Amino acid sequence: MNTEGRMRIAELSKRSGVSVPTIKYYLREELLMPGELSSPNQATYHDEHLRRLRMIRALIEVGGVSVAAIGQVLAAVDGPELSTFELLGTVAGALDKQPQTPTEDIEWTRARAEVDAALSRRGWQGGRDSATDALVEVLVRMSQLGYDTWASEGLDAYLDAAERVAEIDVEHALRASNRADLVDGAAVMTILGDAALGAARRIAHVHVSAGRLGHLGEREN
Amino acid sequence: MNTEGRMRIAELSKRSGVSVPTIKYYLREELLMPGELSSPNQATYHDEHLRRLRMIRALIEVGGVSVAAIGQVLAAVDGPELSTFELLGTVAGALDKQPQTPTEDIEWTRARAEVDAALSRRGWQGGRDSATDALVEVLVRMSQLGYDTWASEGLDAYLDAAERVAEIDVEHALRASNRADLVDGAAVMTILGDAALGAARRIAHVHVSAGRLGHLGEREN
Repeated sequence: MNTEGRMRIAELSKRSGVSVPTIKYYLREELLMPGELSSPNQATYHDEHLRRLRMIRALIEVGGVSVAAIGQVLAAVDGPELSTFELLGTVAGALDKQPQTPTEDIEWTRARAEVDAALSRRGWQGGRDSATDALVEVLVRMSQLGYDTWASEGLDAYLDAAERVAEIDVEHALRASNRADLVDGAAVMTILGDAALGAARRIAHVHVSAGRLGHLGEREN
Repeated sequence: MNTEGRMRIAELSKRSGVSVPTIKYYLREELLMPGELSSPNQATYHDEHLRRLRMIRALIEVGGVSVAAIGQVLAAVDGPELSTFELLGTVAGALDKQPQTPTEDIEWTRARAEVDAALSRRGWQGGRDSATDALVEVLVRMSQLGYDTWASEGLDAYLDAAERVAEIDVEHALRASNRADLVDGAAVMTILGDAALGAARRIAHVHVSAGRLGHLGEREN
């Protein structure tokens, strides 16, 4: 990382587009590492601070991640010694949206069985983590809205697509040469990847529906 | 649709899990169609109302969609006569998150060229709609964070994955037999599909990283 750029907080604010009070807030919350004291009242910041600020803003502005969750992600770097796999899991857990609390009524039970079956067809382990719960919740809501066939017709395609992008994501994250970069890469890939996939899906909707409706003739409902 | 179930607002509230004041708010905002007046002060509701309430809750709770945006989606049903393709576009537009306003600096220009090139390799039309802008924004942020290779290594895989799921989504939405169901299906597939894909990707991350780290030996950073 280039550490040539040395700057005062005002310049850090200008280059990052983050206000000075907000930078001070991130310093207090320990999301941003302290600058180097050049005098008792003056700190100098580096390109590393600029990059960290950009990462914080990407997580907040693109992913709506909370300051508390970012703190948890960053704490993983200095936390107890974890294997790489556990470290990736800690980052993912901190960034997870909490799905609706699963109830144990018949709809949830059926949806969970469908998800478990789909995962086990791929040789993936099912389970009760928050991502699996979130997928079960989608199936319950789809079914309540009358889209019952989605579980049998859509779920596998979604898991295929997810596996395809996960290979890219993990490949990128594992290129990190140290623990801090691994955590950083995993967080960035998770949040920016969500945004990229959502945007790509919307672009694909336009393309696919244009093809379908152009090819089959305009269907007037 | 089963229209046997007839109920008062209290029962509608109980069955949907939505409070009576909130139901009244949705009635005033015309997200929910009025009940049938059984006396000057009493309305009767049907299963159709229950289903609409579940749809509204799914969009709000899963997708964080605003009441105003749901109003725009539903207005498309009664709006001017549009082709099916235009109708799908209207729904998508109402549900789109607004990406950061693109600037025209060199980073944005380069990222836009990369996105346009990737779309044109697939024979898809590039452009400046909000989904394309959102994808460009991700590339800009990736690049600012030092993940410059993502555009050349990740973007195509994301577009492949997006196309795969978009085919399922469009297929499901186009099964609708009337305009109202088409709008409803497109909205549900867009929002619940985002949640499903996000959850599936997180599950796939665990699977793929377990495979990589198990296979290659645990990598200690």
